[in-house]
Amino acid sequence: MISDTQAPVYLDHAATTPMLPAAIEAMTAVFGTVGNASSLHGSGRAARRRIEEARESIAACLGARPSEVIFTSGGTESDNLAVKGIYRARRDADPSRTRIIASAVEHHAVMDAVEALVKSEGAAVTWLPVDSEGSVAPDDLRAALALHANDTALVTVMWANNEVGTIMPIGELAQIAREFDIPMHSDAVQAAAQLPIDFAASGLSAASVAAHKFGGPQGVGLLLLGRQVPCVPLLHGGGHERDLRAGTPDTASIVGMAAALRATVAELDERRTQLTTLRDLLIAGVYNVAPDAVLNGPVGVRRLPGNAHFTFPGCEGDSLLMLLDAAAIECSTGSACTAGVALPSHVLIAMGVNPADARGSLRFSLGHTSTRADIDALLAVLPQVLERAKAAGLAGAGSRGGIR
Amino acid sequence: MISDTQAPVYLDHAATTPMLPAAIEAMTAVFGTVGNASSLHGSGRAARRRIEEARESIAACLGARPSEVIFTSGGTESDNLAVKGIYRARRDADPSRTRIIASAVEHHAVMDAVEALVKSEGAAVTWLPVDSEGSVAPDDLRAALALHANDTALVTVMWANNEVGTIMPIGELAQIAREFDIPMHSDAVQAAAQLPIDFAASGLSAASVAAHKFGGPQGVGLLLLGRQVPCVPLLHGGGHERDLRAGTPDTASIVGMAAALRATVAELDERRTQLTTLRDLLIAGVYNVAPDAVLNGPVGVRRLPGNAHFTFPGCEGDSLLMLLDAAAIECSTGSACTAGVALPSHVLIAMGVNPADARGSLRFSLGHTSTRADIDALLAVLPQVLERAKAAGLAGAGSRGGIR
Repeated sequence: MISDTQAPVYLDHAATTPMLPAAIEAMTAVFGTVGNASSLHGSGRAARRRIEEARESIAACLGARPSEVIFTSGGTESDNLAVKGIYRARRDADPSRTRIIASAVEHHAVMDAVEALVKSEGAAVTWLPVDSEGSVAPDDLRAALALHANDTALVTVMWANNEVGTIMPIGELAQIAREFDIPMHSDAVQAAAQLPIDFAASGLSAASVAAHKFGGPQGVGLLLLGRQVPCVPLLHGGGHERDLRAGTPDTASIVGMAAALRATVAELDERRTQLTTLRDLLIAGVYNVAPDAVLNGPVGVRRLPGNAHFTFPGCEGDSLLMLLDAAAIECSTGSACTAGVALPSHVLIAMGVNPADARGSLRFSLGHTSTRADIDALLAVLPQVLERAKAAGLAGAGSRGGIR
Repeated sequence: MISDTQAPVYLDHAATTPMLPAAIEAMTAVFGTVGNASSLHGSGRAARRRIEEARESIAACLGARPSEVIFTSGGTESDNLAVKGIYRARRDADPSRTRIIASAVEHHAVMDAVEALVKSEGAAVTWLPVDSEGSVAPDDLRAALALHANDTALVTVMWANNEVGTIMPIGELAQIAREFDIPMHSDAVQAAAQLPIDFAASGLSAASVAAHKFGGPQGVGLLLLGRQVPCVPLLHGGGHERDLRAGTPDTASIVGMAAALRATVAELDERRTQLTTLRDLLIAGVYNVAPDAVLNGPVGVRRLPGNAHFTFPGCEGDSLLMLLDAAAIECSTGSACTAGVALPSHVLIAMGVNPADARGSLRFSLGHTSTRADIDALLAVLPQVLERAKAAGLAGAGSRGGIR
């Protein structure tokens, strides 16, 4: 079952996906140049030009204006900038606006930013519930806003969930926030690789994007931020990016992100079709070898094309992950960011999954390098892995004895 | 005087320096792999291993323990994390500790972070004066701490100044802060490329470093932070880097930074000698063609080897910069981060230079690609540039009419 020479099958594209050749080429070209985009001389102006061309390209890919693109170090910084920055700006303008309305299934970059504001800056929070498929009901947002029209600083609901792949009704939600004149942010980190993003049409005030989820480099991302949306910077010094984000801009990574996004958007229709086909093969195949498996999240068009997330009753997710890893299949128990932590997923709990079942879950996420052979390889080893995981689960009663 | 085909002479290494081949090679090797260092499978563990090996290498280069290395998106984030994070942690532990003692010549990443805390979180600040060479006197720090022993949260004094190249007596200052049991941070962004950094020996609690100043990529840096130093994170979510900095770690950039730092430290003695020789040639040459030029900052060992900073009486710095740029010589009027802003440098003002003179200043900064030919090229065009700048200064009485 173990083969050291075989390249592993990578089914964890939602954690990070291989870089696209176009991004690598664009970056290595910049690596051969020198220039700080804030410098006034020729080399500095050339770096500035590369960044502004990337900004225009990215804006065009995402339905935004170039001036709405704020470069950051990644999705986490973008989420923190939006949540904390808009919160602080709104509260500073009106001290009664200290409430954040957020979905209960946000990524930790949003959730922990919200909780930091609760802990340190007197924020109140309304967590919007989700249904059994992980979706926020527009009526719930409307009710929360009706109750808190005068004390809400911002709304934040992710575009698509990183664990179970639920695509939120983001246009409807943004429309409701607009009716109440409350800025709404969306973590679009998972969406940008697989869904068309039209910022202007979305009605959102802000949206977070990370390059490494769509074949760009790690360590770079952006916040789309409407021109009129008040926001206080997180990082001070030097006044770059509309005075919202200080620090020497990372020319190579920004150029690489733009190249990856162009390639992604150009192939988006084709990729969605291909990913959906592969994902449905994966889901059907898993049901075939494990009839008791439970698919978490929605089916069909309300699910990210590349996401399949299962609970396997009687198994520990960590055991499954490690057994699959030993069989050269790489996946996740949830989001990579909390994969080291043995807590049941807050997403599954919010969806009503009981905690014991939640721990027996695995996420398979497909991306631009995924093939039919990857699915076949998973399905070939899954029966034996499930058998061993169940035996271990019974023997260890939840401990990890004997399993690596 | 103008040649379009000639590659420009780059004398702005303090703004950003060309990447070292070792860094580019290390990064492109990582670009061919996939892995989120938080993932538990083989690819994730391989990414984690690359990052931890980089952390060990960097720690060894900087006289720190690996656990003291916190990866960030660059110098600005490191400075913000140290200043705001230590301030908030100390104030939260003791609400009377709301004072920051900082030098008057800090980079804007420190200065603006301090001012943001003054504006939004009730911080008080004591700006330490500098002498005519830009140096903080240890006795001034001692006096400030004696006056504010009970209400000071932290001290922050840069290791070496980015504009005029002054190397601060950082060990002495840190020793005084230790006597008062006050954590001291130092912005070592300019120092790391040209001076040996021994964090343990320095006595500092924290120090900021940016990779692109020593031949690593832009968009990555680190904060050295003692294990016992309290610090609140700026970015929340996911709990990476001792829970002090959330976000998917940027494996390629971290590996590239480690490679650049190894190469820099290996050649440091040789490079210091070479840069000092070139710099002294540059200074002598400038005095030769412009006897009225004034070198700002110290001479000799108290100055960064690669820094030369002059005031040219009767000239506008921006005019000089643009005329030199047209002659394919690239330099700066101060720090690149504020080069777009037409204010006189706060560093020069703090050193006692009068504002009118301060505006007639240029920084030439040398680095790993600098040669004797670069100096010769500058000195060949400088007389004509100065002549034109003076004529324009007289004609325009400070405006920029007619000059590009």
